Amino acid sequence: MNHQIVIRPVQREDFPAWKVLWDGYNVFYGRSGPSALPDEITQTTWARFLDAAEPVHAIVAVRAGELLGLAHFLYPRSTIQLAPSCYMQDLFTVASTRGKGVGRALINTVYEHAGQAGCPRVYWQTHQTNVAAMQLYDKVAEKSGFIVYRKLL
Amino acid sequence: MNHQIVIRPVQREDFPAWKVLWDGYNVFYGRSGPSALPDEITQTTWARFLDAAEPVHAIVAVRAGELLGLAHFLYPRSTIQLAPSCYMQDLFTVASTRGKGVGRALINTVYEHAGQAGCPRVYWQTHQTNVAAMQLYDKVAEKSGFIVYRKLL
Amino acid sequence: MNHQIVIRPVQREDFPAWKVLWDGYNVFYGRSGPSALPDEITQTTWARFLDAAEPVHAIVAVRAGELLGLAHFLYPRSTIQLAPSCYMQDLFTVASTRGKGVGRALINTVYEHAGQAGCPRVYWQTHQTNVAAMQLYDKVAEKSGFIVYRKLL
Amino acid sequence: MNHQIVIRPVQREDFPAWKVLWDGYNVFYGRSGPSALPDEITQTTWARFLDAAEPVHAIVAVRAGELLGLAHFLYPRSTIQLAPSCYMQDLFTVASTRGKGVGRALINTVYEHAGQAGCPRVYWQTHQTNVAAMQLYDKVAEKSGFIVYRKLL
Repeated sequence: MNHQIVIRPVQREDFPAWKVLWDGYNVFYGRSGPSALPDEITQTTWARFLDAAEPVHAIVAVRAGELLGLAHFLYPRSTIQLAPSCYMQDLFTVASTRGKGVGRALINTVYEHAGQAGCPRVYWQTHQTNVAAMQLYDKVAEKSGFIVYRKLL
Repeated sequence: MNHQIVIRPVQREDFPAWKVLWDGYNVFYGRSGPSALPDEITQTTWARFLDAAEPVHAIVAVRAGELLGLAHFLYPRSTIQLAPSCYMQDLFTVASTRGKGVGRALINTVYEHAGQAGCPRVYWQTHQTNVAAMQLYDKVAEKSGFIVYRKLL
Repeated sequence: MNHQIVIRPVQREDFPAWKVLWDGYNVFYGRSGPSALPDEITQTTWARFLDAAEPVHAIVAVRAGELLGLAHFLYPRSTIQLAPSCYMQDLFTVASTRGKGVGRALINTVYEHAGQAGCPRVYWQTHQTNVAAMQLYDKVAEKSGFIVYRKLL
Repeated sequence: MNHQIVIRPVQREDFPAWKVLWDGYNVFYGRSGPSALPDEITQTTWARFLDAAEPVHAIVAVRAGELLGLAHFLYPRSTIQLAPSCYMQDLFTVASTRGKGVGRALINTVYEHAGQAGCPRVYWQTHQTNVAAMQLYDKVAEKSGFIVYRKLL
């Protein structure tokens, strides 16, 4: 039996299964234990995905009813474009499916959404040490040469 | 005579003087001649600074009525925060005032705005070869270790 | 031959046909001749329908490739709800199809969009003298008992 | 001793005093007892006032440290303007100060904010039976002649 992977926007009922992925993603970025993401943020972020006044979106990869991956993207303004940019803030796939095209399918779907929205570009950030992710990223996008500075207030 | 530098939000009347700075900034990033930013984008971006429905802001450094620098920042949503992030998209000072604290004063004012807005962080991007800018950035912020991927659609 | 009416979001290619409807709608509200809506506003409003960062939407009623009506709706925040409200700002059908269910189908489609977006209510305004429109409105919604005050600045 | 009334944006510390006014306002509109506004909405609405990504604002009237009134306004898009509209959703003053100019001062401050934001108009709704409020509204604005339809989903 051969189940196809479907990429689609999240729905209200996805919350429990999405949260498992989201927790896994946050653990990967060190947000666990005492530095875990507060539940209030998870609840608020989820509500924003479903809020028509918020340009924040979530898609999931589903196979036979099982969620295998997620991507979250938003449409921030840009001062050098008429249309907004598309910023993919989060991308995650379950470990067992890595290397099977789920991440790539999620990225391509973000490209489709952004293209239909008239965005001239999609961008995201990755840590300079994340060579596993870059193997995929180098195939579907390009390093811009820009690095990120930040200031915690 | 000793004129103080004042940092303040742009006003409608600033357009001509702001545009001179904006054009200089765009030339720096290679957006000149055939690849110049279309005037429609400049007009739209300016209108957005003054639009109460757009979370896009511009401040300028002014000394004795003369505009010496600009910073543009926006408040994109973040999936890992309740409050938005503060993204400083553009920063520019006129060549004659470099090294005199104008850029730093603009950055500090962005920090103040973001702090009052409850943002836990301010971030921006710079090209990895822009060592001149990094001399300042390394004093007022930190390299996050993240790099930017992008895909032109 | 029996052509079905389809209600769908506007697409880039709809602009010329949409503009004919939009102009008709504006004439109805007295925005013609010297008080016509400036073309810049029409262009900007159209761009907003297609802008992923703007919660402003347009749907059209189409039969056999011909546009018969439009509805524009937006999702303003409300202080007494978690989800935004849905405000239908504009509704228009071509004179030749009045009374044939096009307006009702447009309103029902706005209800569907709003419902999927989790909005608890849709509202709109109509002039107290517009009895023709109210014949339809009284069937699909209710007078709230609220009246609108305004101040031109 | 003569204390002046100051109108200013809300600050984080105003929450307890603002909530007393907000509760009074909600009681006036029948949102009390079993139909009281859920606390989650009050918390979320308050957070939005302080959120730089939300075009939702609150001002209060203060005399000698005491909050006497509130106004909440937002900047929804409009299809017939370049700039957003300004919609005053809530206005309330404590009973003991009615008729002393607090409501008028709040409305005038909303006008100032909207004017600085380039909005061509401010509007609000009131129930057709609220003759007390209309005594003030008829002095500072005009009945537009529009009435509000709504559909609960």
